[in-house]
Amino acid sequence: MRIVVVGGVAGGMSAAARARRLNESAEIIVFEKGPDVSFANCGLPYHVGGDIQSREALLLHTPQTLDASLGLDVRVNTEVTAIDRAAKTVKVTGPQGTDVVSYDALVLSPGATAFTPPIPGMDLPQVTHLRTVDDATALAARVEGAQTAAVLGAGFIGLETAEALRERGLDVALIEMAPQVLPPLAPEMARLVELELRANGVDVVTGLAASAVAPAASGKGVTVTLSNGASADVDIVVVSVGVRPNSSLASDAGLAVDERGAILVDDEQRTDDPSIWAVGDAIAVRNQITGVTGPVPLAGPANRQGRRAAESIMGVAKPAKPVLGTAIVKVFGLTAAMTGASPRMLDQAGIEHVVHHTHHLNHAGYYPGADQVHLMAAFAPDGTLLGAQGVGRAGVDKRIDVLATSLRAGFGADDLAELELAYAPPFGSAKDPVNMLGFMMQNTLLGTLKLWHAEDVEWARENAFILDVRSAGEFTRGHLPEAVNIPHDEIRENLELIRELAAGRPVRVHCASGFRSYLAHRILDQEGFDSANFDGGMLTMQTALPELDLVTGVAQHANA
Amino acid sequence: MRIVVVGGVAGGMSAAARARRLNESAEIIVFEKGPDVSFANCGLPYHVGGDIQSREALLLHTPQTLDASLGLDVRVNTEVTAIDRAAKTVKVTGPQGTDVVSYDALVLSPGATAFTPPIPGMDLPQVTHLRTVDDATALAARVEGAQTAAVLGAGFIGLETAEALRERGLDVALIEMAPQVLPPLAPEMARLVELELRANGVDVVTGLAASAVAPAASGKGVTVTLSNGASADVDIVVVSVGVRPNSSLASDAGLAVDERGAILVDDEQRTDDPSIWAVGDAIAVRNQITGVTGPVPLAGPANRQGRRAAESIMGVAKPAKPVLGTAIVKVFGLTAAMTGASPRMLDQAGIEHVVHHTHHLNHAGYYPGADQVHLMAAFAPDGTLLGAQGVGRAGVDKRIDVLATSLRAGFGADDLAELELAYAPPFGSAKDPVNMLGFMMQNTLLGTLKLWHAEDVEWARENAFILDVRSAGEFTRGHLPEAVNIPHDEIRENLELIRELAAGRPVRVHCASGFRSYLAHRILDQEGFDSANFDGGMLTMQTALPELDLVTGVAQHANA
Repeated sequence: MRIVVVGGVAGGMSAAARARRLNESAEIIVFEKGPDVSFANCGLPYHVGGDIQSREALLLHTPQTLDASLGLDVRVNTEVTAIDRAAKTVKVTGPQGTDVVSYDALVLSPGATAFTPPIPGMDLPQVTHLRTVDDATALAARVEGAQTAAVLGAGFIGLETAEALRERGLDVALIEMAPQVLPPLAPEMARLVELELRANGVDVVTGLAASAVAPAASGKGVTVTLSNGASADVDIVVVSVGVRPNSSLASDAGLAVDERGAILVDDEQRTDDPSIWAVGDAIAVRNQITGVTGPVPLAGPANRQGRRAAESIMGVAKPAKPVLGTAIVKVFGLTAAMTGASPRMLDQAGIEHVVHHTHHLNHAGYYPGADQVHLMAAFAPDGTLLGAQGVGRAGVDKRIDVLATSLRAGFGADDLAELELAYAPPFGSAKDPVNMLGFMMQNTLLGTLKLWHAEDVEWARENAFILDVRSAGEFTRGHLPEAVNIPHDEIRENLELIRELAAGRPVRVHCASGFRSYLAHRILDQEGFDSANFDGGMLTMQTALPELDLVTGVAQHANA
Repeated sequence: MRIVVVGGVAGGMSAAARARRLNESAEIIVFEKGPDVSFANCGLPYHVGGDIQSREALLLHTPQTLDASLGLDVRVNTEVTAIDRAAKTVKVTGPQGTDVVSYDALVLSPGATAFTPPIPGMDLPQVTHLRTVDDATALAARVEGAQTAAVLGAGFIGLETAEALRERGLDVALIEMAPQVLPPLAPEMARLVELELRANGVDVVTGLAASAVAPAASGKGVTVTLSNGASADVDIVVVSVGVRPNSSLASDAGLAVDERGAILVDDEQRTDDPSIWAVGDAIAVRNQITGVTGPVPLAGPANRQGRRAAESIMGVAKPAKPVLGTAIVKVFGLTAAMTGASPRMLDQAGIEHVVHHTHHLNHAGYYPGADQVHLMAAFAPDGTLLGAQGVGRAGVDKRIDVLATSLRAGFGADDLAELELAYAPPFGSAKDPVNMLGFMMQNTLLGTLKLWHAEDVEWARENAFILDVRSAGEFTRGHLPEAVNIPHDEIRENLELIRELAAGRPVRVHCASGFRSYLAHRILDQEGFDSANFDGGMLTMQTALPELDLVTGVAQHANA
């Protein structure tokens, strides 16, 4: 039996290795069109930034080590240019010229190609992608002597690249066409990332795209012109505006692909040809929450798909589970992560949901180094978790992993409330931030928590009595102009005053993060007020509505 | 309606606060026999060690703040001495003398009492427990001018206390009656903790108990005598040998308790008296995996039980889920954590299981700072996860939390294999250590992985051909005397040699951590050998069998 694998990174190499471990006698040939196999794509920005000094550290295997340990026949610099499905052969072009190789099973792991925007200047030597080890080494070298860089695209790789270039001392402009950095994040979560980028000296430009790159008049570097006509000279341009499935090999052979060119596979990674499997960035997968299918270019799923393809060839595969799109990125001192469906994805899929924001500490507040984990979770009206996002300096990865596991389990509010996570002061709290999300959703279902959100602020400022229950000191440092300040622990003695000031209007309460105002809301709700608590407090209000004008100064309410 | 809560820490205070948020009009009285309520018990060792400098940081609330924010009537230094169930009253003794207070609902959160071993000298002033803020402040003060300490008991608090005293510069002896530190851990996992304690200068004594403490002949400090007759003089003795449910109030009132004195409750925390609820360290809970009931003195469950008791009183409770006993401890630079059932608990409960050990990295190996996460997982024969433990310097808490969540979901090998956890090089690997546990169990179920363990070593040394597939260099630095060294990537060309050397015996393969030997095992298995791979490699073999004598020197196998 001969297994031919097209593509020797991530999914392809996982397929080849798993096939060998399951079958010692199969002939396994891996064709890789580039010079390297099994390299650490996710490590490339860290090579540019200097965290990973040695190029060799990125090369996890070589054809020689793979032959020795797994008996794989790995041929680099060799491109598969055509598939003859009837003959079960592939046409390959490599150092030894062109050849035709037969297969019993064919695994396609062609990956994705970096998208190049259709603007002038993309072929200039100062313009680069960051997709291969050679790209990374070349960029790392080019940084020597450079002072300025523009990164086009503020997705995961764009952010990591901007950080890497900044770490190397360059002035970096990060240019994103979408109105926010990290477009898969909810805007209010992305705002925290943007603030971190700015705090570390990155010039963040959102809502604008590059319209042209041209040699600079100075003779050094290039001029990047934006869609609003502004321009700047930089030494380096890194293009990171997304990838496209590399599926022409498959589609040319008549294999089914979706409208975006992603290869269609069944739950054992098999294409519509029973002898051909496909894995990785080039295939379409189904999102567990929305049911939407499309490419999800992530390393984790790719590796498991490769493993599964080999198991399918050997007849022992377990069916794939739909993906959650769990992803994470380090941005200077901050971590941003997500799993499941975002509110935007849910809106697009027409899935009803409620959203909760929390800002609990990563571990016990009295233990040194406590810091806020900013969490956003979306729930179905029945309390089933649909998705979550987190941003913070510590403990974000853990909470998102617990929530990703919870999504797989189909958990709802009661399950999250009762999760029994590991608690000691350096690691968490007796009521973990994940438990708190469950508690909040339980309260919402019970009717004891009613929320108002950023989209209600304009309405509330005109129609409601806005009650700010923070301390007088906090209030003084910045508050909504319409808000009246009564600290949360003075609500009970001021009920008549509140009734008078509200004058029949709904009461919209908030504090800094949503907890003290929840206590106030409980009192007001039970006292018969039409009360609601601002989801996530001023912290979420300000990140969701960055243009909000707050006023400073002392409270001027009636009992002053 | 009047709700009376007995005990103002953790579970009791959670019940009171939740009751208030659900019911603004109830009268809620909390009796606490100590001087402080709602204090950070889990923070006490860190106050002794100096990480938490201020005593006030441990006092999360006072009766005054609880009155202001929640309208709670909190009475400290007030002990409830009796319950009259027929009259629905409690008898209390406090600063105002003795009183009888009626209740509509009574919540018992009496906690647990530190166990005092029945040996002489426990009442000496140098001997202390660490259960209250006053205990911690007194011990922190006593450390000034002290040079030496003995900690009796190497459980969670004992370890934290030993570390705290060591951080303050004392010579510390840690004395544990069980044959290992941290008895809930599997011995081979606890061994890693012991090594960390020793590396940080703690004198670890296991398998011995203190038999007496007496004033030292020198006139300063005390002499601690051990059960083997050895003795040493120390300035301070901290007793941390476990706790007993504080349930005499309940049992004196005729409420049902188990044979260990733990109060019995239903899944809404209700005792066998419909007007009395009980929560926290004093109650019996059911373990989700073994079904065994008993006290589980942990802060997380206590808090959720308190919340649930209040909800039950208000008629809106969700039933409790059985507990997993998830727990974690920081020991100097190391983290040790566990969830679900340990192999010992499974043995005691007669539950069949298989155990896997792994030593994968916390994040991508090429990213700086990667370190091993030592994981142990127990599975049912059908692949269902039953329990897990982890030890390491980074990323242990995350994996245990993911596994605790997986236990709640009833996940098996396929679920763990397919978990989609957040991956970027600073946070994990495309195949996370949790995924790897799933892969290993899938392989076990598929029959492509057969393991041998520490308990098979003696048999294997006499009856099997032991094949060490590490590199020649690793082999030279220490190996089993019977082992023959053939590196894993030279197995294919040495099959005839192996056949000759094995001479019909089973082949028992191992490497350093279990992965290279798995590759060798796959080859040998498919070549018809009776092969097995050592679970967790030399790393687990040596921690499980610390007395194992390895030999050094060059391989002497037949083809040398």
